[in-house]
Amino acid sequence: MEKRTEISELGEFGLINRLNTQASFYHPTARGIGDDAAVLGNGDTLSLVTTDMLLEGVHFDLSFTPLQHLGYKAVAVNVSDIAAMNGIPKQITVGIGLSNRFSVEAVEALYEGIRYACADFKVDLVGGDTTASHSGLVISITALGEVAKNKVCYRNTAKANDIVCVTGDLGAAYVGLQVLEREKQVYLSNPEVQPELSAYDYLVKRQLKPSARMDIIHELADLGIVPTSMIDISDGLASELMHLTSQSGTEVQVYEDKLPIDTLAYNTAVEFNLDPITCVLNGGEDYELLFTISQEDYEKVKKHADIHFIGFMKAKESGNVLITKNGNAVSLKAQGWVHF
Amino acid sequence: MEKRTEISELGEFGLINRLNTQASFYHPTARGIGDDAAVLGNGDTLSLVTTDMLLEGVHFDLSFTPLQHLGYKAVAVNVSDIAAMNGIPKQITVGIGLSNRFSVEAVEALYEGIRYACADFKVDLVGGDTTASHSGLVISITALGEVAKNKVCYRNTAKANDIVCVTGDLGAAYVGLQVLEREKQVYLSNPEVQPELSAYDYLVKRQLKPSARMDIIHELADLGIVPTSMIDISDGLASELMHLTSQSGTEVQVYEDKLPIDTLAYNTAVEFNLDPITCVLNGGEDYELLFTISQEDYEKVKKHADIHFIGFMKAKESGNVLITKNGNAVSLKAQGWVHF
Repeated sequence: MEKRTEISELGEFGLINRLNTQASFYHPTARGIGDDAAVLGNGDTLSLVTTDMLLEGVHFDLSFTPLQHLGYKAVAVNVSDIAAMNGIPKQITVGIGLSNRFSVEAVEALYEGIRYACADFKVDLVGGDTTASHSGLVISITALGEVAKNKVCYRNTAKANDIVCVTGDLGAAYVGLQVLEREKQVYLSNPEVQPELSAYDYLVKRQLKPSARMDIIHELADLGIVPTSMIDISDGLASELMHLTSQSGTEVQVYEDKLPIDTLAYNTAVEFNLDPITCVLNGGEDYELLFTISQEDYEKVKKHADIHFIGFMKAKESGNVLITKNGNAVSLKAQGWVHF
Repeated sequence: MEKRTEISELGEFGLINRLNTQASFYHPTARGIGDDAAVLGNGDTLSLVTTDMLLEGVHFDLSFTPLQHLGYKAVAVNVSDIAAMNGIPKQITVGIGLSNRFSVEAVEALYEGIRYACADFKVDLVGGDTTASHSGLVISITALGEVAKNKVCYRNTAKANDIVCVTGDLGAAYVGLQVLEREKQVYLSNPEVQPELSAYDYLVKRQLKPSARMDIIHELADLGIVPTSMIDISDGLASELMHLTSQSGTEVQVYEDKLPIDTLAYNTAVEFNLDPITCVLNGGEDYELLFTISQEDYEKVKKHADIHFIGFMKAKESGNVLITKNGNAVSLKAQGWVHF
């Protein structure tokens, strides 16, 4: 019998590593698979390209996801990957598979969200493929962007003593998903009951309509800062910290009391019997930026209201640690999202 | 009640037209949606980008499609779109959704085909997204390419009196699909019977592992010919002729006796009680090139063994016509593939 290895044995990252081992390229490529976007070319301006696929039932639940928001999010997650390279998004192509459950009006609602995001991020929708699907909605977006050669930010270039920064707040998207899932269950058991979401507005918005932090990319440029490494937070802070450290050959020390969490997200996590810090570390889908800067750049950003300094990089020694509020050093573990 | 329009009322092209009406672009774009690939930039070298999505059960049937061939085809159809712009493909990104029916070995077989095509077409696999799917296999490939500004070929630039050319032979992929479907039925009704495909080798290969005609693109360049318009034949010759004429504001006259069909495809069509010319006109999936050239370029290509001159463009007058073998003029209709 032929050997059969389950994908779950390798996991998503294991599978990607196993498949994507290209020895050489035919065309100038600064970086292939293994970063937020591929980096192409060899001139002063490099091209960026990234793809994200969203599948119904895996990445979104249409029972509580408005199609406009889904369209917006599908663009934003790709723009976020371009941002994470310190790049500027330029164009997207959109591939959509639709079952006959979807009307023309439904597809238009989806495209309304896509166009809204295109306007927000100044991105052009230049091409695509629309086809039938036997099984729900499939969205595959590819984003193209550009970055100056001397400004591109990779994952593997953080150095010991660099300061670790995150934008915005973390965990809210995950807590928002818990709220939506609970209201769905309430609705399913009694369709007469209207969902009570207004008190959780911010959390639900973080889950359903996350933004990409292009504002931060422009502000860093204005401040004259090129991060020493960068990644966007899609799977969760802990998982992304592991990517930066393992690829850079460093370790990280982060401080629990420096981790940014919104008050409503904190209180709602407690309401759901969730540890707020676990939501911050492993929640995912916040699409904020995680980056490192040289110590000498600290003065330039220290007053930025939306950039938080959560720790620093160290030389390889004894592992990645979280310093808790009461001063204990605990090992930092990445849980992330397991799709397979 | 909200209005609900079925997608089938508009059809694939109607839906695309309705969704993709962008008035202006933020970035230099020579051509957005409505050609084989989008054309980006404003320098001497333009960028090309195209996306194709293949869904299990809609675009392929894994009961008779080896995964290696599927991987190859998924790349080839995108390369064919770049070729149709007279461009050179450079990179691809691959998005794949997999249900747990697929083992790591199965995914590796798919990637083997992808890599084989990458080598054939000198294309780099630079990025992608691999995710779980609840419903079979989903493949979305985006290809990037380049073309010199003075060599790009659009669909809307054919002129009256231009000679209409097609490469290779047509209809074989469609006849090959009939063979595969028949053998599948035989197998389903009696799994003891081995499929009898060897006699239909060429047809099956045309369906399962079509190539993109990059060889023709290089030869046209060597001959100093820039087609006046070009498109690849994915939906069927008649459908593609309609795209060229409707977008160029011309009409076309083609001659039945000039249409290239392989002898085995012809005979097998007859065996299946299919009209061979209908297979040529409406079969699709041959991924040959359909293009027009100026009369003055005819001398340069007239001896090319694999380019066939099937008719000419005319000014708008009374419709697109096929001149049959016995001299009748019949109206040319596009049937194409109806996915919705």
